[in-house]
Amino acid sequence: MNTEMFLVLDFGGTKLTAATVTTAVLDKGQLIWRTRKQAFSPINPSFQTDWQTMRQLADAALDGGLPVAVGVSFGGPVDFETGIVRLSHHVPGWEGVPLAQQLTDMFGVPVWVDNDANVGALGEFWFGAGKRCDSLLYVTVSTGVGGGWVINGRSWRGHERMAGEIGHMMLDPNGPPCLCGKNGCVERLASGPYMAADAMHLVQKHPEKAPVLRKMIQEHGQLNGRHIAAAAASNDPVATHLLQRSAWAIGTAIGNTANLINPKRFILGGGITKSGHIWWNKVRQAAQETALPEIHFDIIPALLGDDAPLWGAVAMCLQNK
Amino acid sequence: MNTEMFLVLDFGGTKLTAATVTTAVLDKGQLIWRTRKQAFSPINPSFQTDWQTMRQLADAALDGGLPVAVGVSFGGPVDFETGIVRLSHHVPGWEGVPLAQQLTDMFGVPVWVDNDANVGALGEFWFGAGKRCDSLLYVTVSTGVGGGWVINGRSWRGHERMAGEIGHMMLDPNGPPCLCGKNGCVERLASGPYMAADAMHLVQKHPEKAPVLRKMIQEHGQLNGRHIAAAAASNDPVATHLLQRSAWAIGTAIGNTANLINPKRFILGGGITKSGHIWWNKVRQAAQETALPEIHFDIIPALLGDDAPLWGAVAMCLQNK
Repeated sequence: MNTEMFLVLDFGGTKLTAATVTTAVLDKGQLIWRTRKQAFSPINPSFQTDWQTMRQLADAALDGGLPVAVGVSFGGPVDFETGIVRLSHHVPGWEGVPLAQQLTDMFGVPVWVDNDANVGALGEFWFGAGKRCDSLLYVTVSTGVGGGWVINGRSWRGHERMAGEIGHMMLDPNGPPCLCGKNGCVERLASGPYMAADAMHLVQKHPEKAPVLRKMIQEHGQLNGRHIAAAAASNDPVATHLLQRSAWAIGTAIGNTANLINPKRFILGGGITKSGHIWWNKVRQAAQETALPEIHFDIIPALLGDDAPLWGAVAMCLQNK
Repeated sequence: MNTEMFLVLDFGGTKLTAATVTTAVLDKGQLIWRTRKQAFSPINPSFQTDWQTMRQLADAALDGGLPVAVGVSFGGPVDFETGIVRLSHHVPGWEGVPLAQQLTDMFGVPVWVDNDANVGALGEFWFGAGKRCDSLLYVTVSTGVGGGWVINGRSWRGHERMAGEIGHMMLDPNGPPCLCGKNGCVERLASGPYMAADAMHLVQKHPEKAPVLRKMIQEHGQLNGRHIAAAAASNDPVATHLLQRSAWAIGTAIGNTANLINPKRFILGGGITKSGHIWWNKVRQAAQETALPEIHFDIIPALLGDDAPLWGAVAMCLQNK
């Protein structure tokens, strides 16, 4: 039996994961990890803590075996060609780290590194909701809004490896200000932390319109995206308004993107996409209204959940075998 | 000498053009037509008048010679794979015409047909402002706003051949209503006829703010995009407002597109792009403000002018040789 093993690593914002998979299992069409080891980042993570933790996780996942290739998903911009990290969105000290080189030195095998959105798109394309779909945008809606492209059956990264930033599509010049300096960005309108901040503000301003959110604040002291979704499901007017606005932003951005690129499918993942039918219905309605009538596409939930980047890292290994 | 000849046809909204070029001339790196014949459409054009006129133009352009391939630019959506026209934006009767097949029957050689935006993009990519630039969006700003993609050095048409519709990117939910049913589309804010209609309306409402436009209306009875640009150059406040708004829409759409796809270059053609530095400066400023700071691109004028689609038709012949 010529079974080979891949090691895949996911440097996420709050979690680090190492996993292994064998070609024998993949050849049978099964999505089953040989091993999968995960650790949460400490309160004040740094490049050093990330790196040491991941080495231990990788050792544990390998369990004495040797990988034939290593695939890496990284939570921040990476130069795919060189495997050098530009920065982590969450952890300081990663700037300029030659991650692919360090892993090549350690394992002596080929290593591929890409950012989590591109790798997540590739995972869904090879193994998940994007199978046999040669053009798709994978969109994550959680603490931020990001995206990764598959065009013509390949990752499209852009000339500076910055493609996919659907979160900073400007949709409303009179919208609320985003940290990026513009008003009315998708991320400003649709992401969890911004929704929660807007909710805190609106509850103070119109307490009578936020009976459910008010109780949640009394109970938890603060809010997150899940609270907004739950309160909207209980007909809290402020929560409903914010959840609908989030969905409007995602749907309108999808419609604009459909007009521009005409991909076959949009695959949505991330915490906010678990907000239920109020959110999904409005996403689909806004996308339909924004796209020209001649333009068609699916909008479907991601299938691989939090493991999409890991499976995408496997796809990078297979693609470059 | 093994010189070969291509026949290229451009079915435009108001003009029909047939031209021929030889590989001997192209091999020398020269952009010189062997022959080029043009006719304006009659007042009430139809598929029949278009087709008869183009046959005569093609005969005249061939001048007894035989083409080895035919490339066609069509002013409306076309199914590239089959060469069947969906519709003309300007001329009735074109729905469902198997244009590639009719030309194959006539000439007995391979024929490629694509819409003018895709072919214009290909022309600029092979021969014009997009040479050696492997990702670009070609945008025409005139009576409408359309676009054509080159991604990874190839035309990207989208899964339904509808990609490039940057004109119907929604930029302002409180903007003026577009014929497509949305508010604040790029085309609604940036194209010539809409600017002219808005100018007529604003001159009536605020005559004191439109001294130059007012005179133009007295003189010509109506307005077009060129009038707005000329009046803005003479500091007419209404014209300046409308021209800046047009440029803001184009620039913001470019910035949004840069975030989403990260192409290297945007190439702008069409009548409105001849509006001078007020327009171009604002386009570049709005694009810069909309794109994330890590994202870079050029915005440059098209080089091939009205012949971009014809040269793109030549590129289709060469590409598929």
